[in-house]
Amino acid sequence: MSADEITRAVEAQFDTVSQWFDELRAGSVDGPGVTRDTFGPGEEFGYRVIEEKARAMGLEISRDHGGNMYMTLPGRDRKAARMMFGSHLDSVPRGGNFDGAAGVIAGLVAQRALLDLGIVPKCDVTTMAIRAEESVWFQVSYIGSRTAFGVLPDGALDAKRIDTGRPLREHMAECGADVAAIEAGKAHLDADQIRSFVEVHIEQAPQLVEAGKPVAIGTGVPGNFRHPYIRIQGEDAHVGLPRRFRHDAVLAASDFARGMDDIWKDNDATGRAMAFTIGRFHTNTEKHALTVVPGEMTLSLDVRAYDPAHLAELEARMQELIADIEQERGVTFDLGPRASADCAPSDPGVVAALTEAAGRAGIDTVPLASPASHDAATFTVAGVPTAMLFVRNENGSHNPHEAMEIGDFIETSKVLTHWLVAEVGGQS
Amino acid sequence: MSADEITRAVEAQFDTVSQWFDELRAGSVDGPGVTRDTFGPGEEFGYRVIEEKARAMGLEISRDHGGNMYMTLPGRDRKAARMMFGSHLDSVPRGGNFDGAAGVIAGLVAQRALLDLGIVPKCDVTTMAIRAEESVWFQVSYIGSRTAFGVLPDGALDAKRIDTGRPLREHMAECGADVAAIEAGKAHLDADQIRSFVEVHIEQAPQLVEAGKPVAIGTGVPGNFRHPYIRIQGEDAHVGLPRRFRHDAVLAASDFARGMDDIWKDNDATGRAMAFTIGRFHTNTEKHALTVVPGEMTLSLDVRAYDPAHLAELEARMQELIADIEQERGVTFDLGPRASADCAPSDPGVVAALTEAAGRAGIDTVPLASPASHDAATFTVAGVPTAMLFVRNENGSHNPHEAMEIGDFIETSKVLTHWLVAEVGGQS
Repeated sequence: MSADEITRAVEAQFDTVSQWFDELRAGSVDGPGVTRDTFGPGEEFGYRVIEEKARAMGLEISRDHGGNMYMTLPGRDRKAARMMFGSHLDSVPRGGNFDGAAGVIAGLVAQRALLDLGIVPKCDVTTMAIRAEESVWFQVSYIGSRTAFGVLPDGALDAKRIDTGRPLREHMAECGADVAAIEAGKAHLDADQIRSFVEVHIEQAPQLVEAGKPVAIGTGVPGNFRHPYIRIQGEDAHVGLPRRFRHDAVLAASDFARGMDDIWKDNDATGRAMAFTIGRFHTNTEKHALTVVPGEMTLSLDVRAYDPAHLAELEARMQELIADIEQERGVTFDLGPRASADCAPSDPGVVAALTEAAGRAGIDTVPLASPASHDAATFTVAGVPTAMLFVRNENGSHNPHEAMEIGDFIETSKVLTHWLVAEVGGQS
Repeated sequence: MSADEITRAVEAQFDTVSQWFDELRAGSVDGPGVTRDTFGPGEEFGYRVIEEKARAMGLEISRDHGGNMYMTLPGRDRKAARMMFGSHLDSVPRGGNFDGAAGVIAGLVAQRALLDLGIVPKCDVTTMAIRAEESVWFQVSYIGSRTAFGVLPDGALDAKRIDTGRPLREHMAECGADVAAIEAGKAHLDADQIRSFVEVHIEQAPQLVEAGKPVAIGTGVPGNFRHPYIRIQGEDAHVGLPRRFRHDAVLAASDFARGMDDIWKDNDATGRAMAFTIGRFHTNTEKHALTVVPGEMTLSLDVRAYDPAHLAELEARMQELIADIEQERGVTFDLGPRASADCAPSDPGVVAALTEAAGRAGIDTVPLASPASHDAATFTVAGVPTAMLFVRNENGSHNPHEAMEIGDFIETSKVLTHWLVAEVGGQS
């Protein structure tokens, strides 16, 4: 099989995948963006579209107890550990069309290329359409992939969806999941039976635009710690209160945000990759007023980095910062519940093989540390050799202005397909 | 008339005023505080209670076109410029019982003392129960007192109450005000016909507690500028976006809050009295999320100081701060509507006379710059010789934990009464 033949088998799919993306967008459009709500009508729509495409390709289709879908091209040895691709089909509210869906469609493109090239892979090749990756809906990470591995955390089924207020268990049951099996900790996937997992995803930052490259090979998924509901308690007071008597929660919260930003600046200056985000930040909207010194602030915090020691150091610096602010402003911080995710470095063997495949495809890639979270991390933590491919994307994700070019998506799919053919196309 | 007789005529009212305050509280209790909503049932209740007390005292009662109430002890010369006291009867939501009401009741105490001492004043002595001082309800300052002087700003009648969403004009009409007369700019009060105006008010800070004094004589009411709805526009982004690409509205808002606080610290250090308050401070509550870099913040700002040049300097420093932040963070500030109130220094003659009266009453007072807003400012700006008396109060105001002692209120009423007798009790 020549490199040119493989490349052409991918390029030939340009119009088809353009139409698939358009179809996904048309059915989930919401204002300027798309909404494919986790375990709701939007995500279900995505599953119907993708299932129809996979069925037309003749792939075997199955679902697990968590509602994840597997689309398999059978290999010569059905018992051998299989190759897996995949990503998620849900989106944030009014988000973009490519975040998640690109990784599912890329898997189908690679499978279609094998079919068109007449290659029967030596093992099964499966594209997984994963549920519920966007933690904004239930404030729980990686619901779909963790359910597949039987590692959904205790209590997650009772998490309430931010818009409906109903628990995850109800939403899952409505989408055909077997909640009793989830509660029993059932695992559908076994890491030993997965040869490797590669997730294609749009980049969420313009680093590839800056670098002038269409594709990046991910160096790993960061771990994180999160406090979704931090509460700062100061003291409501009259606008006439002099500064020395105030316990102003807005100023304490501003100290905190600025202090975390200073920590990030320090880390950036020494090249230590991290990120922190305060997504929610608000006075008590039921009683805040122009002329009342605010005694209460609520905020969320997400801190991420690539190795556990670095994360621990950041958490210690955060604690020092809080102690200083409590002392200075006479307020108290209640951090509320803490969630975390393990650091998930990419597998060096898979990264090397993807880099070689890119070379054969004539595509210039860069390694990329992207501070986002991805289901790939669940596979890494479970022990599966895992890596990611990022597609250039100008305007970030989680917003309606994502700007992935289909051409760049095709370049990425070429890397994936060249790698796949090398891995499973041989006669041995 | 001996000083002791005057003092005893005030002290004799301790139980009566305690009961009046209790009655006001009982009828407007709301959770841990009281709510006497502006041009609503709570304020109306306050008017009914106070009117009944004044009627029982035999005072003349009238209302103006804005619904303010005047309770008058007739003087020997009904045409002479009169003495006025007063404050407001509304409260913030779940606020304290004494903020406002104390100033109305203090006026009645002084009038009662004249009656009990058998003094017929040489001019009319009027206590004014003022409407709608708490700007939290309609985001408009001094509605009642400015209506009385015919200087309510254009557009104020269309301001919507934060809870009902209905305009001021409807609320006023329901409470018996003549909206057409207000629109025509009718003035009920004429500054030339008011000899002086004194407002008694609880202190909103614990400066008197700190100083160990029951009463302070106000040096003036600060002017202010306000931006009730400042909007900072950055860019929503994925939590995976590296720092250098972010336009984070939360960090820009934190820079702003901290920058304003630094300006205040500088001013405090050099003894230049001012205050600023950011009462509302929030991400977009409809779409903010744990894993979205926030592209939008909304906040309110109130800045106050005692002379116009100082206020102008603070506004210029604010503008510089905003320009720096816009540059640094790549965000834009939209300050939205601007409101302002003039600085209102106390009248030196009234302050001197009150200080002498305190001396005769044997009460040790201090001068106090309190950065709060008061209806007294409307009288000052209109040209009436005006001053304020502050009553010691431990826990601030605009909250349920106000802790004015009735004993301190009586001390304050003594100062007021000694001054009143000196002003109007003579035979000339």
